[in-house]
Amino acid sequence: MSSQPAHSTLLIPGPIEFDDAVLQSMSHYAESHVGPAFVKTFGESLTLLRKLFQTTDPASQPFIISGSGTLGWDIVASNLIEKGEDALVLHTGYFGDSFAAALETYGAHATQLKAPIGERPSLAEIEEALKQKKYKLVTITHVDTSTGVLSDIKAVSELVHRVSPDTLVIVDGVCSVGCEEIDFDAWGLDVVLTASQKAIGCPPGLSILMVSGRAINVFKTRKTPPASYYASIANWQPIMQNYEAGKPSYFATPPTQLVHALHTTLTSITAQPMSERFAIHAKTSDKVKAAVAELGLTQLATKPENQAHAMTAIRLPEGIKAPDILPGLLKRGVVFAGGLHKEIAPLYIRFGHMGVSATDPNRKDIDNAIAALQESYVEVKKAKGL
Amino acid sequence: MSSQPAHSTLLIPGPIEFDDAVLQSMSHYAESHVGPAFVKTFGESLTLLRKLFQTTDPASQPFIISGSGTLGWDIVASNLIEKGEDALVLHTGYFGDSFAAALETYGAHATQLKAPIGERPSLAEIEEALKQKKYKLVTITHVDTSTGVLSDIKAVSELVHRVSPDTLVIVDGVCSVGCEEIDFDAWGLDVVLTASQKAIGCPPGLSILMVSGRAINVFKTRKTPPASYYASIANWQPIMQNYEAGKPSYFATPPTQLVHALHTTLTSITAQPMSERFAIHAKTSDKVKAAVAELGLTQLATKPENQAHAMTAIRLPEGIKAPDILPGLLKRGVVFAGGLHKEIAPLYIRFGHMGVSATDPNRKDIDNAIAALQESYVEVKKAKGL
Repeated sequence: MSSQPAHSTLLIPGPIEFDDAVLQSMSHYAESHVGPAFVKTFGESLTLLRKLFQTTDPASQPFIISGSGTLGWDIVASNLIEKGEDALVLHTGYFGDSFAAALETYGAHATQLKAPIGERPSLAEIEEALKQKKYKLVTITHVDTSTGVLSDIKAVSELVHRVSPDTLVIVDGVCSVGCEEIDFDAWGLDVVLTASQKAIGCPPGLSILMVSGRAINVFKTRKTPPASYYASIANWQPIMQNYEAGKPSYFATPPTQLVHALHTTLTSITAQPMSERFAIHAKTSDKVKAAVAELGLTQLATKPENQAHAMTAIRLPEGIKAPDILPGLLKRGVVFAGGLHKEIAPLYIRFGHMGVSATDPNRKDIDNAIAALQESYVEVKKAKGL
Repeated sequence: MSSQPAHSTLLIPGPIEFDDAVLQSMSHYAESHVGPAFVKTFGESLTLLRKLFQTTDPASQPFIISGSGTLGWDIVASNLIEKGEDALVLHTGYFGDSFAAALETYGAHATQLKAPIGERPSLAEIEEALKQKKYKLVTITHVDTSTGVLSDIKAVSELVHRVSPDTLVIVDGVCSVGCEEIDFDAWGLDVVLTASQKAIGCPPGLSILMVSGRAINVFKTRKTPPASYYASIANWQPIMQNYEAGKPSYFATPPTQLVHALHTTLTSITAQPMSERFAIHAKTSDKVKAAVAELGLTQLATKPENQAHAMTAIRLPEGIKAPDILPGLLKRGVVFAGGLHKEIAPLYIRFGHMGVSATDPNRKDIDNAIAALQESYVEVKKAKGL
């Protein structure tokens, strides 16, 4: 039983439902951001991130910064690439366009490799692109929240290391970290950036990154200074290193209550092997996708291998639009999201199944949502005479 | 009586002690950031900021963005000034140097007008500087948290409007908004930037700004695009306008729980005239300063007119350093801060007296802290044989 007041179950692709203990940590009493108690909480949270991202390389550098996931793009764009250099953006939806816009703001040239909606660029296309130009970095949206398309970051990273070994591999893991498999060291990733409010299960307000030693070296050998102040690795890295070493340090005041909530959820997540967490999200996702198929509905993501386990983007049949079915779901206590990909926004809905909703069987969030989807779909078909 | 567990009273110059109701809002259950309930909370919070800053000009634009107060500098530096343009930074401590560094990161030339520690640049010096060069903007730290020096932003703004009418007046109000008098419209201010965790009384994690219509026009007539993505006014202004008009809008996920906490504290703050809130902070500050004088101690801020009401920076006598007295205060349940100004950090301590600690007489935070200061000071003098 949750101690939260009765409320609709939030099953959008983030923010997600939060565990009671996490929300209780949000109301932690006031603490000095440089006092020993908070220094310990912050330092431990940084160390727990190493477990979450599965990195044991001491050169890997975790960051926890006050901001939304979007800030992670600025951190990449203002520190790891310089004016006039090239970035290859693998586009699987809305967030590819936005990452490209962030890169271009700081003067990089972003080349987008786009796939049709619901698909992802093939490895052959990526290889071809990498051979045509020297890219400083490649960005991959692990799960594009606008389409539910999963990228194969392991295969892309292997390809980049083989074909263009100096190119940094940057993963936008906002909708994947904590539920999709990520093996930072083994896969040779350089940056995985994410946010607190999705599969990590902490309220929004934290920009979280893991950066490889290789990427830190690229930063250190920049020809020009970092192009941002608030997003500067030079300003933040010593702070993170000090806190993790148990020493207070100041650049900007950290969001103390959010860090407590992060510590609570990371402690819970990392108490079991990450592989188990990935498996339970896969199982939950399979159940949702089977229920969707049983209703005769399809997904935006065209093939099983490119379908995210974090969420399901459900294509609606002709004659039914998102605003037709979302109210029926809400009436049954379930909040899904409408479409986000601007070309087809009204034609699909998004069902997020991350965090406690996926992992805590006592909550019955997913079973209830599947039942609500079935009932609402039947209801709207009847109303439309379909 | 507070419902928070027993803890030392946090009387550093931010974060401050939080009201129970504010902390309870921090643990609000998960909500969609684009659902009607949260849109209402966010929109009302923006409108409440107009009251907090005392602006009724519809052209004034409030911003609430996930980030620390520092992000406000990037917003100014990347939107309101362009590469090669000049900024005049009125320096009253550590935060002048940092604001200048932020401006220079984006290519502005920052000229610092420095005063000796504990003082502020005189109006005559500022007038002289304004006449020597065309400045795009002037920055003033309203209360420099490192020194406790209060700037006379009303007089400086009048001077700027008279001598250099095209120059924007930018106020760093991180340690002043909510306790020092600010009259946005009447004083002709262009930007007041602040953070949530000081006199506003909300946990850290929100960058808050009020921007004048004049400054928005300067932004709109830039010759070059904004130099930041996450800090771009172009990206955020439509979002703020939509939320305040009751319409959902998306650029980056807002920190929903922090916005609830902000809404709670702003509702409480603006329930009385701002003048009353300023008066109670002045009265509390007078009491602290009288107690400091009674102990034979002086302040970093040299004259009554340049002493902040938000905090008191207490200079220690020869032979006593901050690490000698802070443990005695902590033993008595009170957390003060050490020095921050790098030239004299060990030689003073900082006592913050903002928010509920100043305004809620039932808490007795200030009386207890004054007593703890008196006892600790006597104790350390005895131990040192002074």
